[in-house]
Amino acid sequence: MSARYDRGLARQAELGGPGQTRRGVYDTVAEVAPDLPRLAIEFAYGDIHARPGLDAARRELVILGVLIALGGVDPQIEAHLESALTAGLRPGELVEAIMQALPYAGFPRVFAAMTIACRVFQSRDLLPIN
Amino acid sequence: MSARYDRGLARQAELGGPGQTRRGVYDTVAEVAPDLPRLAIEFAYGDIHARPGLDAARRELVILGVLIALGGVDPQIEAHLESALTAGLRPGELVEAIMQALPYAGFPRVFAAMTIACRVFQSRDLLPIN
Amino acid sequence: MSARYDRGLARQAELGGPGQTRRGVYDTVAEVAPDLPRLAIEFAYGDIHARPGLDAARRELVILGVLIALGGVDPQIEAHLESALTAGLRPGELVEAIMQALPYAGFPRVFAAMTIACRVFQSRDLLPIN
Amino acid sequence: MSARYDRGLARQAELGGPGQTRRGVYDTVAEVAPDLPRLAIEFAYGDIHARPGLDAARRELVILGVLIALGGVDPQIEAHLESALTAGLRPGELVEAIMQALPYAGFPRVFAAMTIACRVFQSRDLLPIN
Amino acid sequence: MSARYDRGLARQAELGGPGQTRRGVYDTVAEVAPDLPRLAIEFAYGDIHARPGLDAARRELVILGVLIALGGVDPQIEAHLESALTAGLRPGELVEAIMQALPYAGFPRVFAAMTIACRVFQSRDLLPIN
Amino acid sequence: MSARYDRGLARQAELGGPGQTRRGVYDTVAEVAPDLPRLAIEFAYGDIHARPGLDAARRELVILGVLIALGGVDPQIEAHLESALTAGLRPGELVEAIMQALPYAGFPRVFAAMTIACRVFQSRDLLPIN
Repeated sequence: MSARYDRGLARQAELGGPGQTRRGVYDTVAEVAPDLPRLAIEFAYGDIHARPGLDAARRELVILGVLIALGGVDPQIEAHLESALTAGLRPGELVEAIMQALPYAGFPRVFAAMTIACRVFQSRDLLPIN
Repeated sequence: MSARYDRGLARQAELGGPGQTRRGVYDTVAEVAPDLPRLAIEFAYGDIHARPGLDAARRELVILGVLIALGGVDPQIEAHLESALTAGLRPGELVEAIMQALPYAGFPRVFAAMTIACRVFQSRDLLPIN
Repeated sequence: MSARYDRGLARQAELGGPGQTRRGVYDTVAEVAPDLPRLAIEFAYGDIHARPGLDAARRELVILGVLIALGGVDPQIEAHLESALTAGLRPGELVEAIMQALPYAGFPRVFAAMTIACRVFQSRDLLPIN
Repeated sequence: MSARYDRGLARQAELGGPGQTRRGVYDTVAEVAPDLPRLAIEFAYGDIHARPGLDAARRELVILGVLIALGGVDPQIEAHLESALTAGLRPGELVEAIMQALPYAGFPRVFAAMTIACRVFQSRDLLPIN
Repeated sequence: MSARYDRGLARQAELGGPGQTRRGVYDTVAEVAPDLPRLAIEFAYGDIHARPGLDAARRELVILGVLIALGGVDPQIEAHLESALTAGLRPGELVEAIMQALPYAGFPRVFAAMTIACRVFQSRDLLPIN
Repeated sequence: MSARYDRGLARQAELGGPGQTRRGVYDTVAEVAPDLPRLAIEFAYGDIHARPGLDAARRELVILGVLIALGGVDPQIEAHLESALTAGLRPGELVEAIMQALPYAGFPRVFAAMTIACRVFQSRDLLPIN
C-alpha cells in the first residue's frame, strides 16, 4: 500500500498486541469498511505511534490513560496491555499505571481495567506478578 | 495531619505543579470543604502518586492520558504539564504524549490539550521547544 | 394515550427499528417503569423525531453521531442503524457516516459501531454492501 | 489494617451491596493489585461514604446519578441499587431516581440502568414494586 | 400552553433555581429554538421532576450526581445547587453530596463542582456554611 | 506537502468553516506541534471528510452529533456549524439537528450547542432563521 501503511504494520509487528489481538476485529469490519483497519494501521500506528521523540512504552502509558477514562473499550485495553508488555513494561508497572488513574477517572473505570489486566497476565503466564 | 498527608505534600513539593498551580483552587474550596484539598493531598498524592513501582514521569503520562480523554479539565491539564516537566519530561516529549492521544480521544480533545501546552511552555520560557 | 404517543408510535412504525428491535427492552422495563417506554415513544419520537424541518434519514445521522460518541450503547446503535436503513440510507452511506466520526470520537468508538453495522447488514442480507 | 479500613468495612457491611456483590471482583483483582480493593474500602467507604452530614440513602442517590451518567459501569449500578435498598430506599423510589436522570443523561443511559434495576428487584423478590 | 407546561412551570417556580438562573439562556435560545426552553419546562420539569414518588430534594441529589459526572455543565450545576437549597438541602448537605461523587467521578469533576458551590453559597450569603 | 494534504485543504476551503474559524488555533499549536494542524488537514479532511459516498452536509450532521455528545468542544461546534451552513444546510435544519440530540445526549449538551448556534447565526446575519 503506502509507506505509512508499511511503517504502521512494522510498528504493530514490534508491539505484538494490536497486530494480533485485534486481527479478528480488523477482519470482521474489513468486509464492510476495508479502509477502517487500513487507517488504523496507517494513521494510529504509521503516523502517530511510530513517531520519534517518545518510546513505545511511554506511548502505551498515555494510551492506557485515555482508554481507562473513555470506558467501554475493553478490547482495546486488552490489546494495549499486550503491547505495553511487549514494549518492555513489566506487569507490576502496568498495575501501577492503572492505579494511577484512580484519582482522576474513579474506581469503576479502574476496576474494569484491572480486571482485564488480571486476564492478560494470566493468559501470558505472568502470575504472580513480579 | 497524617503520614499520608505528609507523604502527599512531599510528593507535591517534588512535582511543583499541583502544589503551586492548584493552590488557589485548594484555598477557595477549603472554605466550604476543607477535606477536599486534604484528600487530594492524602489520597491522590500520598496514597497513589507516591507509590513505588513506577516513576513520577511515567505516572504523569498516564494522568495526562486520562485528563485529555475526560475533557473539560483544563486547569488539571495545566497543573500536570507543569508536574511532568518538573518530573523530567522534556517539552518535546510532552508534545508527543499529547499527539499519542489522537487516535483514541480524537482531534478536539488533543487540540484543547496542545493549546494548554503552548501556554505552559511559553510561561516557562521553553519556546521554541527542544 | 395521547396525541404525542400516537404520533411517536406512528413514527416508530415508519422507522421499523426502534419499534421492533427495542420491543424486548421496552417490555422488560415496563414491569417496573411503564412510563419509561411510554416517554421514549412520546418524547423521543412524538415530540422530537416526528418534528418537521429535517427528514428522518438526516435525523438518524445526528443520532448515530451522538450514540457513537457516548459509547456503551450498542443496542441503541443497532436499533438506529435499522431505522436509518428503513429511512432510506444505503449501507454504504452508513459506513461513511460511521467513518466520519473517526477524527472526533477516535478509533475505539468507531470500531465498536462498525462491528455492529456488520452484524446489522448481515442479518438483513445486505452483504456485500453496495 | 487501619481505622479507615475498619470504618470502611463496617460501612460496607451496613450497606450489604458492595461488600457482597463486589466481593468476586475484589478477590479477582487482589491477586495483582491487593491495594485496589483495600483502597475501595478505605477511601470510597471509610473516608467518603462513612462521613457524617448526609445519610446513606441520600449518598446512594448521588452515586446512582454519577454511575448512570458515566455509562459502562453495570456491575457498580447493580451493587449500588442493592446498597440503596439496604439503606432504606424503596424500589419505587429507585425507579423515580433513575427516571430523574432522563433529561440530563438521556434515554440510552436510563434504559441501561432501569434494566439492571429490574434484575435486582427480581432477584430480591420485590416485584411487583410497591 | 399545555397542562404539562403549567405543571413544569409551577415546579420550576417552587424550585427557584432553574426558573430564574436559567432564564437568560432560555431567552437566548428561544430566538432560534422556542421549543427547546418549552420542552425543558414540559419534559424535564412537567413530565419528570414533578412526578410523585420521590421528593424534590432527593431528585436534586440524583441530578447533581449526573451533572458532576457529565462535566462541562457548570451553568446547570449552579442552577441545580440553587434548586437544591430551595428544596431544603442545607449547604453542608450539598458539600457532602459533592464529596460523595469523588470515588466514582474523580477529583477534577468534584473540584469543578465544589468551586461552583462556593460561589453559590457566597452569593446567597450562606458562608460560613452550617 | 502530500496529495492528502492538498485534498484536505481543498475540502476545508469548500467548507469555509474549519479553514477559517480554526486558523488561529492551528497557528497557535503549530509553534510546538506543527504536525497537529497538518494531520487535522490530511487525516480529518483529506482522508475522511473528502471521501466519496456521503455528501458534505450529511457528514456535518454526524460530526455535529458527535461534538454535542462529547461536550466541552464549543470551538469545534462553532466551526462545524459554519461548515454545515456552507455545505448547504439551512439554519432551521441545523436547529432541528441540534434538537434531535435531546433524547440521547440530554438537555445540558443541547442547550450548550444551541447557544453557539444562536451566536453563529447572528454573526452571519441569519436571524430570524427561515
